[in-house]
Amino acid sequence: MRYFRLSEIFSFLNGEGISYETNAQEDCWLYGFQSIYEVRPGTVSWIKSSKPDWSQIAAGVIVCSKDVSSGIPESVVAIRVDNPRYVFVRLLGEFAARNESAGVAETAVIGNNCSLGSRISIGHYAVLGDNVRIGNNTIIKAHVTIYDNTIIGENCIIHSGSVIGADGFGYERNENGQLLKFPHIGGVVIGNDVEIGANTCIDRGTLGNTIIKDGVKIDNLCHIAHNVIVGENTTIIALSMIAGSTIIESDSYIAPGSMIKQGLVIGRNACVGMGAVVLRNVAADDTVTGVPARTLSKRTGTKES
Amino acid sequence: MRYFRLSEIFSFLNGEGISYETNAQEDCWLYGFQSIYEVRPGTVSWIKSSKPDWSQIAAGVIVCSKDVSSGIPESVVAIRVDNPRYVFVRLLGEFAARNESAGVAETAVIGNNCSLGSRISIGHYAVLGDNVRIGNNTIIKAHVTIYDNTIIGENCIIHSGSVIGADGFGYERNENGQLLKFPHIGGVVIGNDVEIGANTCIDRGTLGNTIIKDGVKIDNLCHIAHNVIVGENTTIIALSMIAGSTIIESDSYIAPGSMIKQGLVIGRNACVGMGAVVLRNVAADDTVTGVPARTLSKRTGTKES
Amino acid sequence: MRYFRLSEIFSFLNGEGISYETNAQEDCWLYGFQSIYEVRPGTVSWIKSSKPDWSQIAAGVIVCSKDVSSGIPESVVAIRVDNPRYVFVRLLGEFAARNESAGVAETAVIGNNCSLGSRISIGHYAVLGDNVRIGNNTIIKAHVTIYDNTIIGENCIIHSGSVIGADGFGYERNENGQLLKFPHIGGVVIGNDVEIGANTCIDRGTLGNTIIKDGVKIDNLCHIAHNVIVGENTTIIALSMIAGSTIIESDSYIAPGSMIKQGLVIGRNACVGMGAVVLRNVAADDTVTGVPARTLSKRTGTKES
Repeated sequence: MRYFRLSEIFSFLNGEGISYETNAQEDCWLYGFQSIYEVRPGTVSWIKSSKPDWSQIAAGVIVCSKDVSSGIPESVVAIRVDNPRYVFVRLLGEFAARNESAGVAETAVIGNNCSLGSRISIGHYAVLGDNVRIGNNTIIKAHVTIYDNTIIGENCIIHSGSVIGADGFGYERNENGQLLKFPHIGGVVIGNDVEIGANTCIDRGTLGNTIIKDGVKIDNLCHIAHNVIVGENTTIIALSMIAGSTIIESDSYIAPGSMIKQGLVIGRNACVGMGAVVLRNVAADDTVTGVPARTLSKRTGTKES
Repeated sequence: MRYFRLSEIFSFLNGEGISYETNAQEDCWLYGFQSIYEVRPGTVSWIKSSKPDWSQIAAGVIVCSKDVSSGIPESVVAIRVDNPRYVFVRLLGEFAARNESAGVAETAVIGNNCSLGSRISIGHYAVLGDNVRIGNNTIIKAHVTIYDNTIIGENCIIHSGSVIGADGFGYERNENGQLLKFPHIGGVVIGNDVEIGANTCIDRGTLGNTIIKDGVKIDNLCHIAHNVIVGENTTIIALSMIAGSTIIESDSYIAPGSMIKQGLVIGRNACVGMGAVVLRNVAADDTVTGVPARTLSKRTGTKES
Repeated sequence: MRYFRLSEIFSFLNGEGISYETNAQEDCWLYGFQSIYEVRPGTVSWIKSSKPDWSQIAAGVIVCSKDVSSGIPESVVAIRVDNPRYVFVRLLGEFAARNESAGVAETAVIGNNCSLGSRISIGHYAVLGDNVRIGNNTIIKAHVTIYDNTIIGENCIIHSGSVIGADGFGYERNENGQLLKFPHIGGVVIGNDVEIGANTCIDRGTLGNTIIKDGVKIDNLCHIAHNVIVGENTTIIALSMIAGSTIIESDSYIAPGSMIKQGLVIGRNACVGMGAVVLRNVAADDTVTGVPARTLSKRTGTKES
């Protein structure tokens, strides 16, 4: 944790064009960020309510809504903005984010014909196969395995233990009922600004590619099967399963433990509820839940993660 | 991708005793395999329909059904067979499968008293405990962990991040409600021709063994608990959970996200539907679905994966 | 497996203050433990039934209930106790547990400012970030990844492939619908006597910590999200998902494949059934099942795992 000054926060907000109002009278040193329950002098927090119980908040810098208009104690520095959570996240990113140790760990294994962008970080014991391309500023954590012929864009983060490009699950029974492996010769293509959680698996395509588009965020322990396409800015939460060749369009929200059958289309801005088992296509903007999943409602806006 | 000739395909089919008919007039060079949507001159594809829309398919080698009898363009080489998907898989296996880099990676850790078959491949950072036996032609990918006293047969593939032989989950509460670990001293025995996906876990037996029989295929992120027995040629798809001591008989199909309680018997050729929560035994040939799972129908044939 | 004598068992039971009765007439050598179906001369087993079918059990040392009063063959050494399973587990722990190779593997990566207790074991290719503290007697298996600022107590076991302290899943949409990462600067704090299965993920807190208290047992492939608190002696079984900031109180039982929404409280000694999707708080001692989960009954005792 590094030290920074309150005036640096105001300089950052001014520089980013983020409008704010404050009751601050003087500059001070700050050393960290806390939840509202633990805020104390020298730390920064945020609050959702437009009518906070100020008797519980005696000190610190609080990012809050412009609707908060009265009762702010003198001991609290309030920074009033339009979207306090968003502004708090921006401050965290600027003042609190840990420095990733850039560079390629000497224990990482890099295959033949790989292309690595600038300012990337590859962690200990990561294993990259042949013909892997990694874009600028991408972070590959320790113990990630990337099979041959995988393309990963810029500004991505892939957490430990994830496996990108393993063979998809496809077999053909022969006349004796034995299962003959369907060789997978496709690859995986991951766009820019994608984050992939720990121990998640994204299988290679059978013949074509499995495709994860820009801005997609996938949580821990998810399974993305062969030839799936995930559209821009879609979020897929922990322990979800997207079966082969399914298309999930952009801006959708796939809640934890969702199971989505092969070959379906999940429309733009759809929401699949927690533990839903989806056996049919989902229309754009629909929310589906249950086993099997049925339409609950139209979704009226994008969901915060 | 290597180059091969159309005549090599015919030689292979003849050698394997696979009957076919073709409109091919002359030999040509080929360089790859594609889905039907991307087929182009020099590539091989397959089609399921017996009445394809030939206006969409202008070139390439197409493996199709013997029922396809008319309309084949002159620019297309059709190879008509009884089971086009099966034949296509065989061609992929013969002409497109990647060469696995045989041998044991120098970064792999091999415990004491291990026995390794011939022509095996063990990937980077794989860790084998003591008393592990691996059969001929088996491929262990990078980052696989195999605990002590595990036996793996011939022609198996185990994908990255899988953990074979960790302690099962068993505790006994003492008089104070604390959980006392049940030591697991059994092992894991895996047959021949088994494939295990990425980040899957197969726990060791408590006293006896956990047993995976010949020809079983397990997808990514599955959990196979202590003392489970999985019968020949059964398939278990992603994110499924088989609890302790359950027996799954041969040729069954366990769909993604299935949860099967401990101590049950799932009969031969049964089908457990996606996301099913199975609390009771399942009879042979039954299909069960839902939470809790109920019998949907008798299963009339083996399911393609 | 080491050899030991029947008289050593009696000495152990006497030393631990465990009351027993036996028909043993003389000492003998023993070499192992078996399930009741495989017990043979020289081995030890246990039986639950108070009226076992002795015709099926011809030899060996059998730990059984004090209620077993007649019919014991002369060829069987019976050790009659109040809780045979518990006593058998204690014997396994004393006479059969494998020796963990203590020490830190030379291939393990240890970050800066780490504090390692005495008699710990860290397996091959484990990766510890900076500022990690590990208590005495704790075992970290091969391929575990521990991110910065994680605290792990004494007598813990963490199985291969688990990832402790990866970033939680939190994003904020900006005005263009793009997802901005919520930086996670909290840590993970794990108490004493905790066991964590293979390929399980426990994310770091957003600002505060994710907390796993003493005696908790977590199975394979579970997801514990940011800022979750798990109370003492709770068990969480395979492929379960606990979403962000949820509190699970002590002595609860979370069955396999459970999905628990963010921000809930699961009361003390609650039971969440297999595959349940929990969308509301669960009262102490309640059992809930289904999708969505509903109260089934009051739980009348702690459940054996």
